[in-house]
Amino acid sequence: MEGLVAHLLPHGQIEPSLVLRRYLSEIRGIYRDQEAVNKILREEGDRLVYEVYLGEVPEAEGHVAYCTTVIYPGTVGDEFHMTKGHFHARRDTAEVYLGLRGKGLLLLRREQGPYQVLEFGAGLLGYVPPFWAHRTVNIGDEPLVFFAAWPADAGHDYVTAERLGFGVFVRRLLDGYRLEEALGS
Amino acid sequence: MEGLVAHLLPHGQIEPSLVLRRYLSEIRGIYRDQEAVNKILREEGDRLVYEVYLGEVPEAEGHVAYCTTVIYPGTVGDEFHMTKGHFHARRDTAEVYLGLRGKGLLLLRREQGPYQVLEFGAGLLGYVPPFWAHRTVNIGDEPLVFFAAWPADAGHDYVTAERLGFGVFVRRLLDGYRLEEALGS
Repeated sequence: MEGLVAHLLPHGQIEPSLVLRRYLSEIRGIYRDQEAVNKILREEGDRLVYEVYLGEVPEAEGHVAYCTTVIYPGTVGDEFHMTKGHFHARRDTAEVYLGLRGKGLLLLRREQGPYQVLEFGAGLLGYVPPFWAHRTVNIGDEPLVFFAAWPADAGHDYVTAERLGFGVFVRRLLDGYRLEEALGS
Repeated sequence: MEGLVAHLLPHGQIEPSLVLRRYLSEIRGIYRDQEAVNKILREEGDRLVYEVYLGEVPEAEGHVAYCTTVIYPGTVGDEFHMTKGHFHARRDTAEVYLGLRGKGLLLLRREQGPYQVLEFGAGLLGYVPPFWAHRTVNIGDEPLVFFAAWPADAGHDYVTAERLGFGVFVRRLLDGYRLEEALGS
């Protein structure tokens, strides 16, 4: 394989890339308030919550996978737009984030033990060490855009992250947010 | 290890980080024109060519090392400021670059076979696949600033890169640059 250059466009798209679009209907299970989900789907139709622009890199050991993520601003009930969140299938692999635009939170959690909440956004770097599941929440009024890089053979485990949750809900307030512990976490 | 957040400052510094400063006197061997090096050292004193802000990450398998690099604009003789360049000690590891400011070139070379030259800078992503040595050249009039991420256990091999060179010199012209093949490459 030879070296490659791709373009990072002002909105956050990588060109060329593989584009993943996450609509509310497919990620509805991450939200507490299912009535609010139903109301949105009924009254607005489906909603684009976030997009991932994935660099064209082999999913093989030694390679470094990378993407940008664009989380649009908004809420579902009183919860902010956020990513599904995942563990790496190879649990012992890390991930690094570089915030390009907007304001958010990085939620981290291990399979055993506590969760962690970090402020993240434009001008901040986030480091997700091995063994921590990670989810990103847009707590601002503009898109949250960030670059991420991780070992390309890490894989994704969404199922365990969905089952365990992230231990905490991020609730919108008029002037910011409040963290609320999830029951049983 | 828990998750961490670091700041990316406007100039390109990561805070906190380990700072490596590369002065002309220590990297003089990468330049063709040793008379020009001597003249600069005699007339200006030593010169800061580039800085690396290295994130505080263990150099262990599964971790992702990251840094920003700031290459100041300038020339040594008719060659632009550039990094020393290196292979990874673990040759089968890649690296991804995100250009934040300025204008440059990414020089790549395998131990056997051809070299490659890619345009790189603000708004561009560069991918260095496994087995390629990599060097970055500032061909603009402002600092070239970029973010990089790679497998934290990759290691650095500067010696082989210095012995082989990158196959090509990047020579400053009044209105741009010219590539000149190195002898014996």
